[in-house]
Amino acid sequence: MATAVRIVEVGPRDGLQNEPHVISTAVKLGLIERLEQAGLRTIESTAFVSSKWVPQMADHTQVLLGIARKPGIAYPVLVPNLKGFEAARLAAAEEIAVFGSASETFSLKNINCSIAESLRRFARVLEASRAAGIRVRGYVSCALGCPYEGDVPLTKVAEVASRMFELGCYEVSMADTIGVGTPGKTKAMLAAVADRVPRERLAGHFHDTYGQALANIYAALESDIEVFDASIAGLGGCPYAAGASGNVATEDLVYMLNGLGVVTGVDLDALIDAGDYICEALSIRTRSRTALAKRNKRLL
Amino acid sequence: MATAVRIVEVGPRDGLQNEPHVISTAVKLGLIERLEQAGLRTIESTAFVSSKWVPQMADHTQVLLGIARKPGIAYPVLVPNLKGFEAARLAAAEEIAVFGSASETFSLKNINCSIAESLRRFARVLEASRAAGIRVRGYVSCALGCPYEGDVPLTKVAEVASRMFELGCYEVSMADTIGVGTPGKTKAMLAAVADRVPRERLAGHFHDTYGQALANIYAALESDIEVFDASIAGLGGCPYAAGASGNVATEDLVYMLNGLGVVTGVDLDALIDAGDYICEALSIRTRSRTALAKRNKRLL
Repeated sequence: MATAVRIVEVGPRDGLQNEPHVISTAVKLGLIERLEQAGLRTIESTAFVSSKWVPQMADHTQVLLGIARKPGIAYPVLVPNLKGFEAARLAAAEEIAVFGSASETFSLKNINCSIAESLRRFARVLEASRAAGIRVRGYVSCALGCPYEGDVPLTKVAEVASRMFELGCYEVSMADTIGVGTPGKTKAMLAAVADRVPRERLAGHFHDTYGQALANIYAALESDIEVFDASIAGLGGCPYAAGASGNVATEDLVYMLNGLGVVTGVDLDALIDAGDYICEALSIRTRSRTALAKRNKRLL
Repeated sequence: MATAVRIVEVGPRDGLQNEPHVISTAVKLGLIERLEQAGLRTIESTAFVSSKWVPQMADHTQVLLGIARKPGIAYPVLVPNLKGFEAARLAAAEEIAVFGSASETFSLKNINCSIAESLRRFARVLEASRAAGIRVRGYVSCALGCPYEGDVPLTKVAEVASRMFELGCYEVSMADTIGVGTPGKTKAMLAAVADRVPRERLAGHFHDTYGQALANIYAALESDIEVFDASIAGLGGCPYAAGASGNVATEDLVYMLNGLGVVTGVDLDALIDAGDYICEALSIRTRSRTALAKRNKRLL
């Protein structure tokens, strides 16, 4: 098991993008600053997607240009295609993320093209990135199941992951987009992917929809994965399903890793403060059980 | 890892005892019946404790006498002492549970006596149980930490567990009462206890206060534990801390075990219906993420 883990904080992007409440650019920048102060070193900051489809991310350029960037911290931004890439490049992106799928139906419904076509798009984005000196991180969504197809064959998952790696992604994050995975399936999926992509180039991205995220992350740690995505306060979820859980909460992940003696460089109390800040702005209750427990403890 | 797991449903006792809302005997009996119908075979049904301290359990005799008992199903009831035992025996209890602690301070504050004195009390209860042909299950609380003392030495945890086993408990449930444990500590604790009590006589009882319960249960499965306590809808929590998590939700546990291919005999949909029933009676929202996800899915 890893002695140290890098956490990729996705709250400002995957989290806020899926919250119905749209918040100001200033609050987003305040959140990113607090996440940095808590010790996070990779913060996915926004998405260069159409404001027509994702109004929560309409201020992507202002966010990326507004960050007081610090050395040693990466601020990847999601880009769906070459147009998004160009906009991100103009906003001085140093790292981007591309979003693929292991499920054909999910690809068609969410990226509006086949997997093959999405890989051709990524190839163009990665070529342009290389030319511009921009690093690229890849996501493989539906790695543990698809809302339309159900189970996704592991050969397909491994194939898409390896293609994204071969195209030049420095890291490929295996995403349980709808949170249906369980620990045994997580291990089997990671074993299949690790046959084709070096383990140290893989990350885990788990949603807590069925409450399984931390158990799956523990299984992934046992599979020697060393990078995990998480979202402050468990932001994310499903904008039209009240109370539904989103990404695993960064606080809960850090609590577990602290208990395991795994170094993250993240200060849990500062993280909980960052969560309080964004939950207040969104007028929601945190979905982090650790934050809730610690806050209740303070009140007692 | 076990191919089958026995789930001890503790919602009607550990769950309801910690909910501020007191519900009627009829609703409690309705809950127990629905839990049976979902396939649960061990249902901790009530506690023979003082109604002055725990008004939620004041109707213990009515509950235990009211159950339409079925063959093959155990309905353990919690008893704190010989007085509680006598009341349970008069209500025709066939199985009881006694509640010890690995932490001296927790024992003093919650059972009002030292650990040594509590073990002397258990000895008397176990002797009387043997004479009456009543089975006894034991709990060791604070097995992964104490709200007053913090870390509890594993030697102390193992000592209390082995004493309860030697006194005649057929099973000893190792309880993370305040939910502070993490998977590595869970494995270390179970290894220490299994040095003194046969592994097949141990159960795991995990609270989800910090969101760690399922990860800890997965670690316990890897430690060859085959019995787990859980509470329908995650009932329990802390009566004076809004939103605090209680026991691990039975639904979330069954979801994970189903995914792992571990047989439980429990039907997840029927379980979710039982959770809906009790949450409606308590006017609370379920704390099971699986139940929430499945209900949202039905609504979409």
